[in-house]
Amino acid sequence: MIRLFVTQPLSQGAAVDLTAGQAHYLTNVMRLAGGGEVMAFNGRDGEWRARLVSVAKRGATLEVVARMRPQTTGPDLDLVVALVKRARLETIVEKAAELGARRVRLAITERTNAERTNVERLGAIAIEASEQTGRLDTPAIEPPQKLPRLLVDWPADRPFMYCDEAGDAPPAMVALAGRAGGPWGVLIGPEGGFSPAERALIRGHAAAVPVTLGPRILRADTAAIAALTLWQSALGDLRGA
Amino acid sequence: MIRLFVTQPLSQGAAVDLTAGQAHYLTNVMRLAGGGEVMAFNGRDGEWRARLVSVAKRGATLEVVARMRPQTTGPDLDLVVALVKRARLETIVEKAAELGARRVRLAITERTNAERTNVERLGAIAIEASEQTGRLDTPAIEPPQKLPRLLVDWPADRPFMYCDEAGDAPPAMVALAGRAGGPWGVLIGPEGGFSPAERALIRGHAAAVPVTLGPRILRADTAAIAALTLWQSALGDLRGA
Repeated sequence: MIRLFVTQPLSQGAAVDLTAGQAHYLTNVMRLAGGGEVMAFNGRDGEWRARLVSVAKRGATLEVVARMRPQTTGPDLDLVVALVKRARLETIVEKAAELGARRVRLAITERTNAERTNVERLGAIAIEASEQTGRLDTPAIEPPQKLPRLLVDWPADRPFMYCDEAGDAPPAMVALAGRAGGPWGVLIGPEGGFSPAERALIRGHAAAVPVTLGPRILRADTAAIAALTLWQSALGDLRGA
Repeated sequence: MIRLFVTQPLSQGAAVDLTAGQAHYLTNVMRLAGGGEVMAFNGRDGEWRARLVSVAKRGATLEVVARMRPQTTGPDLDLVVALVKRARLETIVEKAAELGARRVRLAITERTNAERTNVERLGAIAIEASEQTGRLDTPAIEPPQKLPRLLVDWPADRPFMYCDEAGDAPPAMVALAGRAGGPWGVLIGPEGGFSPAERALIRGHAAAVPVTLGPRILRADTAAIAALTLWQSALGDLRGA
């Protein structure tokens, strides 16, 4: 069943106007006819069965039929990732959505490969991945911030996994064993790693939990996916009931 | 330091002829001059410091200087992955190299999106990723095989994680806890999953260890990376000493 993220409220009988892009996708790409059904979610009201009721030239409308799942949200997990090259950054955002991160924060670091990115496009990628992965919310994409600023503002009571390439940190599952869940973060550096000054800043942060991701050098996208997977397995919703 | 995978034997003083592609990469892309140093490995003789000694029009030669690391190999881990679309399959091969898989086996399944792939190109991707990730071998890429054939030939004493989307399997870290290391596999299905007949065949296999990768639907590349990460964390070289 096709899933669509919408911004309007969802309740029984409500009419939801789709964007031109969504209307095009449903009618032209997926060839859905009037009366055809989709699932709709908005991050607040759960997941609803909805019916395509009117198709106009530049839009379409859904009629909301029945709620299939109540709203749930995954763990309060922030992925902080250095601005890496576009293709890998887009992969990271897609995977953050699939692996249940609640937010993606973009960090400008000394060895960052770019100073800016198209946050709107990353948001669209996050929404599409959220639709496909079955979650009931979408990760927020925060605009890029310089790493020192981001660390100053970071709450001391939100621990974050610092994936340290230096290799003297304990394996992630060892470092996370026995830790409490709740608000957490995962920090992933750029290709080429953090600078020595940045490493000192990070390791001096009260909330930093240094971990190693093993004996090989990982690209930023691999490190992000591995770290999110391990956190979800140790403290999140991959750990089972 | 640039790392190069070569096929020739490596020993002190040996001369190693590079391929035209490697010579182009060293001299034109990386702008390495004669006398410049690289690291060379071949999967058998460890890692060696080597010096660029002669640059001709269509090739170049390395002189092997000194061994920096003895040969090691990672865990005996096979990734079996359905033939998915090219871009995602290439990502999977790159990540399998970074995450220490020893082999990648390609499976033709009922819902496979392709019947063939360019195995040679996948091998080149595996080599490049191995050079970058710092490992001393490269994963072998096996040509595609039909899933039932692959399962018939699969040794009963090589357990494999079966990432089952049905959801009644235990979380991967729970299923792997207390298991012995040694030869293992990870089996990842196509986008759209295995067919019911395939699921029955897999679950009936003596070596199958069904696991879940959490409450969300993962794309094949995400599932492969997550599963390799979790296996390495539970039984492989991400678990620490």
